[in-house]
Amino acid sequence: MKKVNIGLLGLGTIGTGSYKVLEMNRAQIEKNTGCDINITKILEKDVDRERDITVVPSQFTQDPDEIFNDPDIDIVIELLGGIEPASTFMLKALNAGKHVVTANKAAVAANFDKLQAAAKANNVEFRIEASVGGGIPVLNAITTVLGANQFVEILGILNGTTNYILTKMTEDGASYEEVLKDAQDKGFAEKDPTADVEGIDVANKLSILMALAFDTYVPPTEIPTIGITGVTAEAIEAAKKDGCKIKLIAKAAMTENGLEYSVAPMKLPDSHPLASVSNEFNSVYVTGNVVDELMFYGKGAGALPTGSAVMGDVIEIAKRI
Amino acid sequence: MKKVNIGLLGLGTIGTGSYKVLEMNRAQIEKNTGCDINITKILEKDVDRERDITVVPSQFTQDPDEIFNDPDIDIVIELLGGIEPASTFMLKALNAGKHVVTANKAAVAANFDKLQAAAKANNVEFRIEASVGGGIPVLNAITTVLGANQFVEILGILNGTTNYILTKMTEDGASYEEVLKDAQDKGFAEKDPTADVEGIDVANKLSILMALAFDTYVPPTEIPTIGITGVTAEAIEAAKKDGCKIKLIAKAAMTENGLEYSVAPMKLPDSHPLASVSNEFNSVYVTGNVVDELMFYGKGAGALPTGSAVMGDVIEIAKRI
Repeated sequence: MKKVNIGLLGLGTIGTGSYKVLEMNRAQIEKNTGCDINITKILEKDVDRERDITVVPSQFTQDPDEIFNDPDIDIVIELLGGIEPASTFMLKALNAGKHVVTANKAAVAANFDKLQAAAKANNVEFRIEASVGGGIPVLNAITTVLGANQFVEILGILNGTTNYILTKMTEDGASYEEVLKDAQDKGFAEKDPTADVEGIDVANKLSILMALAFDTYVPPTEIPTIGITGVTAEAIEAAKKDGCKIKLIAKAAMTENGLEYSVAPMKLPDSHPLASVSNEFNSVYVTGNVVDELMFYGKGAGALPTGSAVMGDVIEIAKRI
Repeated sequence: MKKVNIGLLGLGTIGTGSYKVLEMNRAQIEKNTGCDINITKILEKDVDRERDITVVPSQFTQDPDEIFNDPDIDIVIELLGGIEPASTFMLKALNAGKHVVTANKAAVAANFDKLQAAAKANNVEFRIEASVGGGIPVLNAITTVLGANQFVEILGILNGTTNYILTKMTEDGASYEEVLKDAQDKGFAEKDPTADVEGIDVANKLSILMALAFDTYVPPTEIPTIGITGVTAEAIEAAKKDGCKIKLIAKAAMTENGLEYSVAPMKLPDSHPLASVSNEFNSVYVTGNVVDELMFYGKGAGALPTGSAVMGDVIEIAKRI
């Protein structure tokens, strides 16, 4: 069987999840690819943490160049998070002729053009399914079998934390502050929730969606973005009376004036399919000029769902190696 | 630019829709494939019908072998419908070294193993996205980027006619017979609705989904199938009182006893995402052991949505030719 070796940058939550997916479904993955796929080197400082996976100490390295310069490594999975050093590492890997898979929306959104250009110049694949919508396979659909469409509009619920907060505010009539506190206590929201509640995470994902669906790269900092911190219990109650729900919506639409885009809380009628996307679920609602309306729905975060998307990208690369 | 030529079998509703998709979005399709794609020959008796597309008489042929024996044709699109002669024609095309794309669920479900084997033996692609869920790109997801999953369960609303009838019965409290008559008058149901209302069409689609997701081919005639003709206004009213909707559900689940499958009307709680799939919309609800729950939703029929799936398959083949 053909051997495919992976260098993994980062063994945090998503890194461990991706590793677990390969361990749990090794037979299925071998059948689907005809390849013996192994994570042979891991860049990670925290060597001792208990992760409930089988890693031997010799797999760990503290030197990323050991991965980029290893001629036996075919694919680099980047799961460090944050813009740097992740972007520099991905460029190094691409320039070393490695295929790259990542879930890192901040780095991809900040450096989309550079990363795509490096992949093209080195004739390798740069795959980013896990960076938008976690386990939901929407980017692959947009870039493959929906390719006979001109996209008209994309609406997305792309952040589980804010959707959970808005859902609880709607169900319980509670204030933003109360629900955020509760979500933080339960581990559903981070101690510093800024990137989620201010819409920054969603803007990163919308930037990636627009680059792929509309072939137009807009840096996330240039997307008009309003988070959910100003959404009051009263506004949610008033929306309810109108038969509506308030959702944090990423929107991109091709109009007579060109591509228009924003991230903001929106009132959606209860009859809209996105209105019933609750709690931590994510969803992307795509309109194409021939396929009409499509919706993709699933878990937008979490170790195993995101690991499913990461390893799905690895599988597609392995089939063609 | 690389030229890719297509032979089209059948210029009915879906054939005309696929032709229109290529006409409408030619620039987009060229950009996505780097290919100049043309339908050069069409097998069709009805040469004179007005179809609102640009076809020249010399494109038509009455002899399928003119397509299979044409060395300039790379891809055969089969849109004749029905098991025969469609299956024989697809086998001929595959054995002649042509890639085959089809929307024909009856033929694919009846002869899945034979068609797959012929594609493999001739090292060509056999793509069937449009055969299940029309424009919804669920088969491609299952066979590519969800490949790191062991599938646990698939639930589908896979027939627009029956979902329309059940939706109207639920909304209006009307009887099956009344709504069917109305749907036939409006052209939403066929004069002979047997294949739809008896669940035969859905069983074909479930057979295909199971073959791809569970690597288990079950002929549709061996799937326990109950249609919607026995669903009464009273049963729908009783379900409503329990906070449920009745939907015609294709179900396949991997259990301790192996793969279990059926097509039958089912009561779903209103909170289930499939319960709010209304009218002619289709949806597939997939549970994988790592991705968890996913839903795909969209138009399961219609000339342009189905044409989107047909041409999407053509695009994926053209990229690799």
